[in-house]
Amino acid sequence: MKFNVSSNELVNALSAVSGAVPNKATLPILETILFESDGNQLRLTATDLEISIIESMDADIDDGGAVAIPARRLIETLRQLPDIPVAFEVDEKFNIKFRTDKGTYKLVGEDPDEFPEVPNLNDGQKLETSKDVILNAIDKTLFAVSNDDLRPAMMGVYFDIGAEESKFVATDGHRLVKYIKHDLTSDTEVDFIVPEKALNLVKKALHDEECVMTITEDHVRFKSGNTIVITRLINEQYPNYESVIPKDNEKELFINKEQMLATVKRVAIFSSSTTRQIRLQLNPDNLTIRAEDIDMSSEAKETIACEYSNDEMEIGFNAKYLADVLGNVDGDEVYFEFSTPNRAGIVKPSEEEEDEEILMLVMPVMLNTYA
Amino acid sequence: MKFNVSSNELVNALSAVSGAVPNKATLPILETILFESDGNQLRLTATDLEISIIESMDADIDDGGAVAIPARRLIETLRQLPDIPVAFEVDEKFNIKFRTDKGTYKLVGEDPDEFPEVPNLNDGQKLETSKDVILNAIDKTLFAVSNDDLRPAMMGVYFDIGAEESKFVATDGHRLVKYIKHDLTSDTEVDFIVPEKALNLVKKALHDEECVMTITEDHVRFKSGNTIVITRLINEQYPNYESVIPKDNEKELFINKEQMLATVKRVAIFSSSTTRQIRLQLNPDNLTIRAEDIDMSSEAKETIACEYSNDEMEIGFNAKYLADVLGNVDGDEVYFEFSTPNRAGIVKPSEEEEDEEILMLVMPVMLNTYA
Repeated sequence: MKFNVSSNELVNALSAVSGAVPNKATLPILETILFESDGNQLRLTATDLEISIIESMDADIDDGGAVAIPARRLIETLRQLPDIPVAFEVDEKFNIKFRTDKGTYKLVGEDPDEFPEVPNLNDGQKLETSKDVILNAIDKTLFAVSNDDLRPAMMGVYFDIGAEESKFVATDGHRLVKYIKHDLTSDTEVDFIVPEKALNLVKKALHDEECVMTITEDHVRFKSGNTIVITRLINEQYPNYESVIPKDNEKELFINKEQMLATVKRVAIFSSSTTRQIRLQLNPDNLTIRAEDIDMSSEAKETIACEYSNDEMEIGFNAKYLADVLGNVDGDEVYFEFSTPNRAGIVKPSEEEEDEEILMLVMPVMLNTYA
Repeated sequence: MKFNVSSNELVNALSAVSGAVPNKATLPILETILFESDGNQLRLTATDLEISIIESMDADIDDGGAVAIPARRLIETLRQLPDIPVAFEVDEKFNIKFRTDKGTYKLVGEDPDEFPEVPNLNDGQKLETSKDVILNAIDKTLFAVSNDDLRPAMMGVYFDIGAEESKFVATDGHRLVKYIKHDLTSDTEVDFIVPEKALNLVKKALHDEECVMTITEDHVRFKSGNTIVITRLINEQYPNYESVIPKDNEKELFINKEQMLATVKRVAIFSSSTTRQIRLQLNPDNLTIRAEDIDMSSEAKETIACEYSNDEMEIGFNAKYLADVLGNVDGDEVYFEFSTPNRAGIVKPSEEEEDEEILMLVMPVMLNTYA
């Protein structure tokens, strides 16, 4: 195999796939990137057996073939080069030599036949959408994904593509986010759970305006421009999240988001470092947020103006989860709905795009009275 | 005690001293910052028993006094506030209450009498110099300081203030830097070793153009503007570094610094990850740098143009130390002096300021022949 490429273009293509190279591989072949010629294109593939990324790039190919090249050394070397032509030569024993006008470098590659096969999704269900739709769905939900290995279903974002609308849901049991997109639909309904790591890689891989998803029983593929990300799905039943969203929440609160977030962060500094508990006291036209840390004899109290006209109520939250949710609400104002102190608080942005809806939820914590 | 300050001014003063607050304190009092009133000034002190930082700031003091306030909670809270007035009140039991128009915060302080006494250096030798001189001396030497606990003398920068010139030296046994400043002198000669951590804090603390050093047997104080840094000295004999600087180095090499540094970094990627050994082959008018990693069957070779007209020579270096030294040379060109492959290579910038001289040295490594 013999080919010539620009060092910068190759670095860009390698960086696109390198996210799938595991940090510590059990199989040495996973620490390589598969190079394959395809006409006047070079196809690069990396995989950790769960997630695979494939990137195609133009190259000047003198002699077709395939080889698996150690990822780390190749990428590091090319990153240290200015943008210059690089000539690669691979012999039949997969010895790799590459040359620039600066010097000569030798590496030992691996047999490309040893490289794991990437799943073929040709028979899958296709769904054409755009980069923006997918990016938005990921950005709005990813923060709420669980990292609890004991609840694998919650370690990804639930995609529920319906005939009328699509839903994207994430929860870790403490907070939940449901993002509804009305203008993404499919006549054949399909739902699946995409692992968090894959979505982080998809975010980086979406270069083109278009994004085509292909879904099979076990995998989903995202194709955008020259980049393809394929991931195994989380093969679990997603929890019945609708049942935890309280209905009949007659207590409505409108408040400035930045002001509330800053208050939650300040007051939280005085909360117990184990529970992170803060208490919200809803009064007509103002909200008081308090925390205390009995071990350190410290406490804090702040009051903010808000729109609230229902009965007084006190409700406790873990400051971290409340701050996370507030930090992920768009717009200047935020809208809360409450029912009772032992039911979840619902959080919504005060304004929404026409074709989308977003609902977040924070579970309350039991207040220990300290009067 | 009662005083009013602006939150931003207090945060800045606290940040200035907080570098001396230990991350994990053995004594709880060390996790506090001592607040003392002094006329219409507030003096803040933090210490880890080795290094103390003192900062003075203007404040509106209603009631004088002193208290030790837990550092972390106070700084975190103030950082989350916009720039607003903060009113502090401390009762006789050192309960601290501070108020802004946002809210009220309570903390328990400590008795200021428990706070460790900061060394008094009034009888020390005074040396007036400038921020630039001290910053330069630190910046040029700090990278070469050792972190080997078994050689405590080398864990700091050696200051040797003489009647004709001053020298600042750092070495870890693999590389050495000697920085000479001709226009910093003292009739009373004095030499001492300042710990690395203290110098990092001094760098951040130099706000004013002027810097006054005060030196005693065990301590040195740097005073610049409103900030004072006092550190215990390393009470050890500094090694006789002059003996390792080879004389009679007739092999001279001039080379472009950035080009050589980039080559060293690229070639090093192909060196053995345990030895990081690279070999420099000096030929008339060019320098070839090679590395090989026998375990990974990888190798690299680059050749760069240079000015060299002496006999051919091969010398080995640890790529990390050579790259560190090159990265700390000023200017576009670098000048090397060599004698034999088993003696240190001397590195100098090609141009220097009039009143200063700099000499660096990298120890060679024994080459294992692999012909």
